[in-house]
Amino acid sequence: MGWQVQPNGPTVQVAVEKAIKMLTGFDASVLSAGRTDSGVHALGQVASFQTESTIPVDGFRKALNKFLPDDVIVRDAQEVPLDFHATFSAVQKRYRYVIHNCRTHNPFLRNYVWHFHQDIDSAAMHEAAQELVGKHDFRSFESHWPNKASSVRTVKEVTVRRQNFCPLWLGDADQQPSDNNSGDFVWLEIVADGFLYNMVRAIVGTLVPVGRGRWNGDDIRRILTAMTRSEAGDTAPPNGLYLVHVDY
Amino acid sequence: MGWQVQPNGPTVQVAVEKAIKMLTGFDASVLSAGRTDSGVHALGQVASFQTESTIPVDGFRKALNKFLPDDVIVRDAQEVPLDFHATFSAVQKRYRYVIHNCRTHNPFLRNYVWHFHQDIDSAAMHEAAQELVGKHDFRSFESHWPNKASSVRTVKEVTVRRQNFCPLWLGDADQQPSDNNSGDFVWLEIVADGFLYNMVRAIVGTLVPVGRGRWNGDDIRRILTAMTRSEAGDTAPPNGLYLVHVDY
Repeated sequence: MGWQVQPNGPTVQVAVEKAIKMLTGFDASVLSAGRTDSGVHALGQVASFQTESTIPVDGFRKALNKFLPDDVIVRDAQEVPLDFHATFSAVQKRYRYVIHNCRTHNPFLRNYVWHFHQDIDSAAMHEAAQELVGKHDFRSFESHWPNKASSVRTVKEVTVRRQNFCPLWLGDADQQPSDNNSGDFVWLEIVADGFLYNMVRAIVGTLVPVGRGRWNGDDIRRILTAMTRSEAGDTAPPNGLYLVHVDY
Repeated sequence: MGWQVQPNGPTVQVAVEKAIKMLTGFDASVLSAGRTDSGVHALGQVASFQTESTIPVDGFRKALNKFLPDDVIVRDAQEVPLDFHATFSAVQKRYRYVIHNCRTHNPFLRNYVWHFHQDIDSAAMHEAAQELVGKHDFRSFESHWPNKASSVRTVKEVTVRRQNFCPLWLGDADQQPSDNNSGDFVWLEIVADGFLYNMVRAIVGTLVPVGRGRWNGDDIRRILTAMTRSEAGDTAPPNGLYLVHVDY
């Protein structure tokens, strides 16, 4: 399920708000660092709320988890200044996208990776992706532009590397890809001061043609400067996307 | 979904029979090595069928996978003698049961492990489990006895060891547990010439009280010789159970 309130189906936001109400007796409006779509995973989501409850903050993690469904878990709870805002106080975020690049798909991982069966060149993808680093107008990689005041964002780091595992362990949340750069899983890691709607998925859908040899770094630069969504590649499916970490 | 035809809901058997019909044009009745219940996983299930199709056997794996749903995959296809029977020709089977023994449950693994948050002593479980090795009447570990002609089975090997991962990769199917015996995952591996209904899950549910210090090897022997289901522990949930391998 996604974060945000949707017309039908459960959302993480509703689940968290219900749990807070059950625990404290008070209604709470919960803000999050990133409104992940349905199918997208969050290893390090951050959410904030104000409450009149006098329950000590140390008790919140354990107690909230008792009221949350099996597929949502609170990993930590901290008291923050009143002016803290999970969305707007965020300085940068790290997302990860995992492609299972293997002839045979793995049924167990179908909700956690994008299975892509043709061989892709992760080194070429990494090299071309460096064109995205820096302060740019990323509207070529935004769905539904111009919904936002500005589509200028600063990408601080982007890497594409092969790994031999898929990040499903909570302990892996802050783990960096290892150095051997081999295995059936292609991980894209990207850090920016903010992300536009579907930005990471559009970037992945544009880098895969690079991995197939159809495009290269020059094409990425051309697509970026065109500032038109239709120039870029398809939006990769949500399954492979993970919100890994938020810095404040 | 489980293997066997059930009153409601999809089953693996139906999915495979439909795929064969779509591929070959012929109806087929598919037999399997083990009729895994709903929620149980199969890494190395074996199924057999007779067909009048003249499609070469080499083409079956790839072609059947095109007609199968995302959560079922054919890993290999071989031609066998006409008297081969996936159920009755099996000489021995290996099952694995995975307990995630950790204070915090992992939402990503909720369908693939039994989360047990209190600390369990895997070495004590391993030692006590050795009482099960050999030819015994296992009716204390069978649901719905006396459905079968005989509840005598021979357990050839049983190990309980800690691992730091959960077996979700197809490549792990035949992988043996490593030797360091540490990590949050407790794997039970058991090989026998056959298994009674819910036998592995009843064994796991009986070994966990050993891991908690409530029972020991003497209790396992007492339960085994009592030949009464109510003497043994609860039936562990299906999520943690994997059919790993079948020998013919």
